Amino acid sequence: MELLNRHVTIRNFKNKPVTQHLLESIIYSGTRASTTGNMQLYSVIVTQDAKMKQKLAPLHFNQPVAVNAPVLLTFVADFNRFSRWCEISKAEPGYANFLSFFTAAIDALLVAQNVCVAAENNGLGICYLGTTTYNAKEIIDVLELPELTFPVTTVALGYPEEVPELTDRIPVRGIIHHEKYQNYTEAIIKDLYSFKENLAAMKQFVKENEKDTLAQVFTDVRYKKSDNEFFSEKIIQTLREQGFLV
Amino acid sequence: MELLNRHVTIRNFKNKPVTQHLLESIIYSGTRASTTGNMQLYSVIVTQDAKMKQKLAPLHFNQPVAVNAPVLLTFVADFNRFSRWCEISKAEPGYANFLSFFTAAIDALLVAQNVCVAAENNGLGICYLGTTTYNAKEIIDVLELPELTFPVTTVALGYPEEVPELTDRIPVRGIIHHEKYQNYTEAIIKDLYSFKENLAAMKQFVKENEKDTLAQVFTDVRYKKSDNEFFSEKIIQTLREQGFLV
Repeated sequence: MELLNRHVTIRNFKNKPVTQHLLESIIYSGTRASTTGNMQLYSVIVTQDAKMKQKLAPLHFNQPVAVNAPVLLTFVADFNRFSRWCEISKAEPGYANFLSFFTAAIDALLVAQNVCVAAENNGLGICYLGTTTYNAKEIIDVLELPELTFPVTTVALGYPEEVPELTDRIPVRGIIHHEKYQNYTEAIIKDLYSFKENLAAMKQFVKENEKDTLAQVFTDVRYKKSDNEFFSEKIIQTLREQGFLV
Repeated sequence: MELLNRHVTIRNFKNKPVTQHLLESIIYSGTRASTTGNMQLYSVIVTQDAKMKQKLAPLHFNQPVAVNAPVLLTFVADFNRFSRWCEISKAEPGYANFLSFFTAAIDALLVAQNVCVAAENNGLGICYLGTTTYNAKEIIDVLELPELTFPVTTVALGYPEEVPELTDRIPVRGIIHHEKYQNYTEAIIKDLYSFKENLAAMKQFVKENEKDTLAQVFTDVRYKKSDNEFFSEKIIQTLREQGFLV
């Protein structure tokens, strides 16, 4: 619990390589996660080569963490390997559809989180790169991902240069619903988000972005409707190209 | 690592309740997982009431584990709470789209896996119910999930009646790709899957199902093309109804 409870995202890494043995060991721990029907619908692409990192960096919007991490792990929803097994086993695979994509995505994400927990347990630090879904199409090209595969997230990994303080979370009572979803009144929302809104760093963030409220930094700057709609179309098109959508 | 490496799915539980304190504690550990832009795009619905369990059971195809577990946790991709915060903060949310759904689904699944690790660290056993995506529509009705939410997985939870042996996994080298995806030759597939195919339990499974190969049990019985296509249409329709797809 203590390990999970003190998780922080690491964006600066020491110039210290991660051994192959350790990498395999944490990925093995990843594969011990639950998986749908024990089908193991995932692959992990390990990026350590400088040239490959250079190709991936712009696809992760050149975030310094993507450029500087000693290792990137791209977690791939993978129905290709399983389908190939079917094909050589006189069985006709039926996984070129959206349910199968989402099933494989769930499998891959449970592995990713286990790998992160195992990494931290071994003194490594991690940072998830949400950019993977934005630029799945180009990542597919660079990593040569075949049909019936799709990259769902990337984890940057290395030994932490420094360990920042815990980030804020809304109170856990704001996450939990007993028996049925209790929709949020204005008073409850204000109660849940006031701590965050009043943090000095968040007030600074609002000021720097010349906005009136913290929420506006999200809607107008960080996660904009127009970007979300653009990337939604792109993901859907890429799911089609990978054979997961008709 | 040891905790992750000895994970097994538990389907039989002792008649021993899980305290509210422990439930909150493991869900709190869940919320320490990485989350996109610290937006925390998830909710957890706790089912303990017998009547609610009865309503959910058929939606999980009456799997005994769904009927008998003392607790079900439904993990929900949730952009509703965040959007409501935006609305009362003079900010216009732009999250009624597929990218936002998938971002929230990733968030929710990382929480789910952390909750499972925390649960096992406290002596609980868990079982993921993949049926959640199949019957998301009906689960939405029962749990009264509003627009911009979607249930992505359910975890059944309780104290283990017995702890089964570890299940098989393909060798980890079959999961890892260095720098680029190496597609699988027939020889490699045979090598990766031969251990599984030769397990006595799997041979029995093929025989019971009157099939020639283990893969046929998956394609013809457990995860059939026609079912996958039916449920794909249903999920897509439900994503539309929840406001995540145009």
